[in-house]
Amino acid sequence: MLVIGEKINVMSKNLGEAMKERNPGPIIEMAKKQIEAGANYLDINIGPAPKEGPELMEWLVTTIQNEVDIPLCLDTTNFEAMEAGLKVHKGKALINSASGEPERLEKMMSLAAKHDSLIIGLCLSAEGIPRDANERVMVAAEIITKAAELGIPNDHIYLDPLILPLSVAQKDVLEVFESLRMFKSLSEPPPKTVVGLSNISNSLPRELKPLVDRTLLAMLMACGLDAAILDPLDREMINTLKTAEVLRNENLYAPSYLD
Amino acid sequence: MLVIGEKINVMSKNLGEAMKERNPGPIIEMAKKQIEAGANYLDINIGPAPKEGPELMEWLVTTIQNEVDIPLCLDTTNFEAMEAGLKVHKGKALINSASGEPERLEKMMSLAAKHDSLIIGLCLSAEGIPRDANERVMVAAEIITKAAELGIPNDHIYLDPLILPLSVAQKDVLEVFESLRMFKSLSEPPPKTVVGLSNISNSLPRELKPLVDRTLLAMLMACGLDAAILDPLDREMINTLKTAEVLRNENLYAPSYLD
Repeated sequence: MLVIGEKINVMSKNLGEAMKERNPGPIIEMAKKQIEAGANYLDINIGPAPKEGPELMEWLVTTIQNEVDIPLCLDTTNFEAMEAGLKVHKGKALINSASGEPERLEKMMSLAAKHDSLIIGLCLSAEGIPRDANERVMVAAEIITKAAELGIPNDHIYLDPLILPLSVAQKDVLEVFESLRMFKSLSEPPPKTVVGLSNISNSLPRELKPLVDRTLLAMLMACGLDAAILDPLDREMINTLKTAEVLRNENLYAPSYLD
Repeated sequence: MLVIGEKINVMSKNLGEAMKERNPGPIIEMAKKQIEAGANYLDINIGPAPKEGPELMEWLVTTIQNEVDIPLCLDTTNFEAMEAGLKVHKGKALINSASGEPERLEKMMSLAAKHDSLIIGLCLSAEGIPRDANERVMVAAEIITKAAELGIPNDHIYLDPLILPLSVAQKDVLEVFESLRMFKSLSEPPPKTVVGLSNISNSLPRELKPLVDRTLLAMLMACGLDAAILDPLDREMINTLKTAEVLRNENLYAPSYLD
């Protein structure tokens, strides 16, 4: 299971300020904390960053990778910022994300091909949010087709079924389970799958969020989920994840498996 | 999701003694506690009870159902004890269990037909413990066939894939996930599914058991599990279960769904 730490986000008050001031301290500290907690990738979310996206993303990638040895998940809808980040990134970056929307699909996939990156394919189309598993699979098939055209290996694609908030789309969760299973038959080798986990608990009471997030994680892992963008500093979440890994026979059980 | 409370068991020191002395107090108390915690059925496990099985089961069923209004899951391999319990049981009893072993299959199924009971079909054959999902489905098919012969409705059958302890059969958990999905195509309407959850953490360190049990429960619920024999007094387990029910869209989400 690939853990993508979600904590470096321009929407965080503390880290948003550090980004604005180009102050590496708090950003490096958060990178190290997440790595220590078990993150395999770090999501770097700068939002659309209309003004100085390319320069900010370049600064973040070099600043973080000068201090810690970890690949990054570059998270922006700004194509120029994405390209600027990929140019300076060491190792295999993860692009977050292409979608079924034509311009975004074309541009992000071309960047993935050019830089030999991994790429998240979000099941969102020009028509909007998919209504069920079938609509998700249709978008996913477009993404896989585009990747094939550009020579991107199938297992470089991480399909994201798009988790919607429980509070507004409760019956959609079962569609996500179904999608994860259906995605696996889209190509050989099968595409990988990823979710942005905390979407589920958007606008839920604060005391319910961790329980809902970690319960959903275990359920998604039973459906074959390969990767998740989540908060690795949530200790109970990581305990659930490690337990599900043992139950999926990915890590050998030992009484010390949580340590 | 059907919750079958596991706490009334002859192996419990306190309750085993109460059974021996025909002392209703501790048994009724444990029944009430489990019902309050959310149990829909109560498992009544008297073991093989070679000596006085019929009389003990009859006493337990009448004693409990005189005090609390709940159906029982009669848990013994002793056919005479099972029949004695069914004769006095009010409402729809659950027989725990038939298996693929010929005598047990024939006798327990006949009892289910005669008393119009629900029945657990455990995936255990005369050859022993199944090695994978396919072997489980073969035993399950025998059970379904026998039920059909006797006119037992398909949805009265609760197929139990048989969870083995993580410590001795780690790679078997994935086979259980697969079995639960495969069982559903064995009949129309599909059979229901059930597990004895705590088998997974047999011989694990005490501090790991609750985490392993509740994580597995969420994973099994993502595979469509309909019922589980578990400890309803484990509050975190019940919170996980209620959350998974909301995520499966079985209960409407409300901020107060845990209460």
